[in-house]
Amino acid sequence: MDNIMNIFPFWSELNSADQELMKNALQIEKYNKGMQVHRYDQNCKGLISVSTGQLRIYILSEEGREVTLYRVHERETCVLSASCLMDTIAFDIHIEATEDTEVLLLPSSTLHQILSRNPAVELYMYKEAAANFSDVMWMMQQILFMKVDQRVAQFLWDEMVRKDTTTLKLTHDEIARYIGSAREVVTKVMKYFAQEGAIELSRGKVEIKDKNLLKSFL
Amino acid sequence: MDNIMNIFPFWSELNSADQELMKNALQIEKYNKGMQVHRYDQNCKGLISVSTGQLRIYILSEEGREVTLYRVHERETCVLSASCLMDTIAFDIHIEATEDTEVLLLPSSTLHQILSRNPAVELYMYKEAAANFSDVMWMMQQILFMKVDQRVAQFLWDEMVRKDTTTLKLTHDEIARYIGSAREVVTKVMKYFAQEGAIELSRGKVEIKDKNLLKSFL
Repeated sequence: MDNIMNIFPFWSELNSADQELMKNALQIEKYNKGMQVHRYDQNCKGLISVSTGQLRIYILSEEGREVTLYRVHERETCVLSASCLMDTIAFDIHIEATEDTEVLLLPSSTLHQILSRNPAVELYMYKEAAANFSDVMWMMQQILFMKVDQRVAQFLWDEMVRKDTTTLKLTHDEIARYIGSAREVVTKVMKYFAQEGAIELSRGKVEIKDKNLLKSFL
Repeated sequence: MDNIMNIFPFWSELNSADQELMKNALQIEKYNKGMQVHRYDQNCKGLISVSTGQLRIYILSEEGREVTLYRVHERETCVLSASCLMDTIAFDIHIEATEDTEVLLLPSSTLHQILSRNPAVELYMYKEAAANFSDVMWMMQQILFMKVDQRVAQFLWDEMVRKDTTTLKLTHDEIARYIGSAREVVTKVMKYFAQEGAIELSRGKVEIKDKNLLKSFL
């Protein structure tokens, strides 16, 4: 917690009493891969910062269909888990750990006190929400305007760059959930990419064999 | 402009110099139905308040497909036309007048000055953007999770309530653009609703004959 200023940039704008209050309220929470961090019908959790691992923010239809909105990586924060404190946010999301994940949580009860005294904290929350808005708009354009093969290629490319490896541990089911499509459709596209020689498939793993060819599918 | 406080709620937080600056900068702009108010590749317009009429905010694919995100009605403001001043907003939208429309525009050059001196204005902008985020999430859930017939029924129902009339002047093409679907699909759904007796169709007009039946399609 030495670098709390880097984690929560509004830290330096708080007076020492609020800094103390915040320090004492911060909790470390651990989630195994696949665990639910937040459900839309639960109480408002608070402000989350990911220390290690990754969170997936998604929506769920009545029929159980999931669509991923965006992901929160290490050193990034998630404000929609505190949306009860933001009165112009009127929608519900789910949060799941997609890897073994450790987060730093500022519970909403304390956040509420600090926020009500510090306009800088409120502005921080809404600015972060606007960044999430941008992420969602990107995802929406992908879903509405791009074909599934382009979206799969884009996802594999982004994962390769982000993880800096051509060996990706991903099931077709996981890919389908990330891009908001059906597993059967993803499998069809992946087989086509493999046939063309862009990737090689094995159980729970995708090996990227030809980056330029993969890029040509974007 | 007597009720400028009602139009721009941050007005009362400005000092008299900024109030004067803002008053002198405000412009009235008129758009005929169908006119483009803002294009993604144009300069940043500024903060818009709709005096009369209606604006439609939409995105456009490379192939020219349009998807409506939300609409801005009388006495509502539009902040995404000033997104250049919001550094966490990173996407482009188009704005079109869907009726003959008159707006009050605070150009981005003046808005920029006022915003840089007044955190309350910045917070206002981001809060409004978060409200738009909620609108977009609602639309996204409609597009992803609802069938086209439900979306057409929902749209007709909302228009009936909003305009307080069962006679709606709407072409199938307009409805298709509002709900982000193809005209042919909308025509098929509308013919089905007409056949069932929920609506009656004539050129550029939809007459709602049986509200309860229409509601049952939701």
